[in-house]
Amino acid sequence: MHLTFYTIWPCALFNINRMQSISSSSYAVHFNQRAYDALNGHLSEKSYSKIFIVVDENTHEHCLAPFMGRIQGTYDFEIIELESGEENKNIDTCTQVWNVLSELDGDRKSLMINLGGGVITDLGGFVASTFKRGIDFINVPTTLLSMVDASVGGKTGVDLGPLKNQIGVINQPEMVLIVTDFLKTLEERQLQSGFAEMLKHGLIQNAGYWEELKEVSHFKLMDDLIYESVQIKNKVVLEDPTEQDLRKILNYGHTLGHAIESYFLENVEKKALLHGEAIAVGMVLEGYLSKDLVGLPEAQLADIKNTFLGRYPKVDFTEDDIKAILALLKFDKKNSHGNINFVLLKSIGDPVIDIQVPDELYKKAFAYYAEN
Amino acid sequence: MHLTFYTIWPCALFNINRMQSISSSSYAVHFNQRAYDALNGHLSEKSYSKIFIVVDENTHEHCLAPFMGRIQGTYDFEIIELESGEENKNIDTCTQVWNVLSELDGDRKSLMINLGGGVITDLGGFVASTFKRGIDFINVPTTLLSMVDASVGGKTGVDLGPLKNQIGVINQPEMVLIVTDFLKTLEERQLQSGFAEMLKHGLIQNAGYWEELKEVSHFKLMDDLIYESVQIKNKVVLEDPTEQDLRKILNYGHTLGHAIESYFLENVEKKALLHGEAIAVGMVLEGYLSKDLVGLPEAQLADIKNTFLGRYPKVDFTEDDIKAILALLKFDKKNSHGNINFVLLKSIGDPVIDIQVPDELYKKAFAYYAEN
Repeated sequence: MHLTFYTIWPCALFNINRMQSISSSSYAVHFNQRAYDALNGHLSEKSYSKIFIVVDENTHEHCLAPFMGRIQGTYDFEIIELESGEENKNIDTCTQVWNVLSELDGDRKSLMINLGGGVITDLGGFVASTFKRGIDFINVPTTLLSMVDASVGGKTGVDLGPLKNQIGVINQPEMVLIVTDFLKTLEERQLQSGFAEMLKHGLIQNAGYWEELKEVSHFKLMDDLIYESVQIKNKVVLEDPTEQDLRKILNYGHTLGHAIESYFLENVEKKALLHGEAIAVGMVLEGYLSKDLVGLPEAQLADIKNTFLGRYPKVDFTEDDIKAILALLKFDKKNSHGNINFVLLKSIGDPVIDIQVPDELYKKAFAYYAEN
Repeated sequence: MHLTFYTIWPCALFNINRMQSISSSSYAVHFNQRAYDALNGHLSEKSYSKIFIVVDENTHEHCLAPFMGRIQGTYDFEIIELESGEENKNIDTCTQVWNVLSELDGDRKSLMINLGGGVITDLGGFVASTFKRGIDFINVPTTLLSMVDASVGGKTGVDLGPLKNQIGVINQPEMVLIVTDFLKTLEERQLQSGFAEMLKHGLIQNAGYWEELKEVSHFKLMDDLIYESVQIKNKVVLEDPTEQDLRKILNYGHTLGHAIESYFLENVEKKALLHGEAIAVGMVLEGYLSKDLVGLPEAQLADIKNTFLGRYPKVDFTEDDIKAILALLKFDKKNSHGNINFVLLKSIGDPVIDIQVPDELYKKAFAYYAEN
């Protein structure tokens, strides 16, 4: 499951990028060249006893060598490779990693660097936060989704059976490093998935940003847009770190989207949806609920539906699928006192939280999604 | 594994106890009558959606009814019974409890009350801290050990194989309730085990308290001494919540003591030692190291040995036992950069941290413990 090496890596130079670092509560998000500068500064300042780098087979192949090539100095590295995929984001995998850390003499002065997508940063962050009651960790998101979503906010966690992120803690990394070059290693479908979270940032915070994103026809030169998405998410999270109120707006599309994602993940006959594909459906469904319950204008609802159906494959839902998805809803971790609370849109850029939905509306929303 | 009931319990009146509450970082430790007053005030103020009470078979039988008899008001309770014993303090048990919480519709507004000894409060605290990224919890320690040791400091966690408390977080309960009446349900051996931690508080902080404790010949009327121990621990923990330096003194006797405890727990041929019995040996061994390395006076070392051997059964160690125990030492979570750091005593009440021990001294320490 793991391999080990010790080596000194030479230092190369990237182009300096103009993106400033974004400060969050106790740490910063650094971009591109600044990311490596910050990392090297941090490593030389803290004398970690050992550095564990958690990767999956994809980031091991595509990202690890370029990443390590930028680390200056001699450190004692251990590479821990996990199998990619949401189905491995569970407590069993955590137990394997905890055991590896113990076997490799990980101690409280160890550092964990999570190099990968959301599964790696969520799970790695949880393992680091709980190993010997917490060791330092640094997240290096390598997918568009994890750059714009998991990168700030300090959420860590794993799934419990079909329940997404049921087990976890809120804990901040030492820093987050966003190296947009890693996006070149991703397939179009993966990029499109991450783009759904960016569209969400427009819907919940900034109608102008939504308009700007709708024009995007390819995923080159995304740096400025990624930066804007991280800024939006960071602003929300800083104002409400423990999700008492404002932060809930980030769940737009996710209440139904998570249930859909879980359902397709658990059903062997169904092709699994990527996270962005599932919440794209969720954002259309919750757009319909928004129109019915809080007055989202019809034209804006149509804009939302057209935008998502123009970018993401349309999903077919049978009646049984819908029943099962609604059953999963009640497990959503945002529930309180048995109610299911939605974030809905009064208009694009203007969300409202804690809305409860009458049961009969769900089927209408799915019907609206299905119609041409 | 669990049972469920819904009921209203009548309120009775205990004798008012004069012990003031002790304030810790973000919460307080309340004693006896004040404990119930604080609990009832808290429950009526927060409107929890559901209250989970975690017990083991012993506290279910002896403590649950008197405890619930003192709760005023109507709440939706669920009782979760775990099998007692350190061997159940692991991730598998956590997974079972997380699943029960999910099945019983636990949500973010749920409260968990951990009613039991250190296994219940450590494990329950960890489960609560990680369920849906953290729900409120209240600890009600029912053993002398958990009252004077686990009650303050916010350490939660479970064992990973033979490694004690390898997985956990530091997180504070809403409050800690110490009801000394629960001690009446304990056997002498259990009380003696908890008393070892109180003796430790004397050794590391207060020679006068050590002298006072040595005079204790029975475990009635312990309220004032328990109060003093909680105060000592609380003072240390408040000054250094994340165990950077001062808090390490609480590990006196535990570096070797934990290894001994783990070894006896894992070996089916050996009779398991209670925590206090293991650290009683650890405090004698580390007393010997203290004499050799930091000048603990010979007479004080003899006092320590006589006191512990007068109260706790002498443990026989074979050469193989000692080898295995020393091998376990390197896993101790206080290790840093591969070194094993000890807390030693310059004199009784005057500890010193971060001392490293030459390998050859360990066997001498065991030999000193063995000699008559």
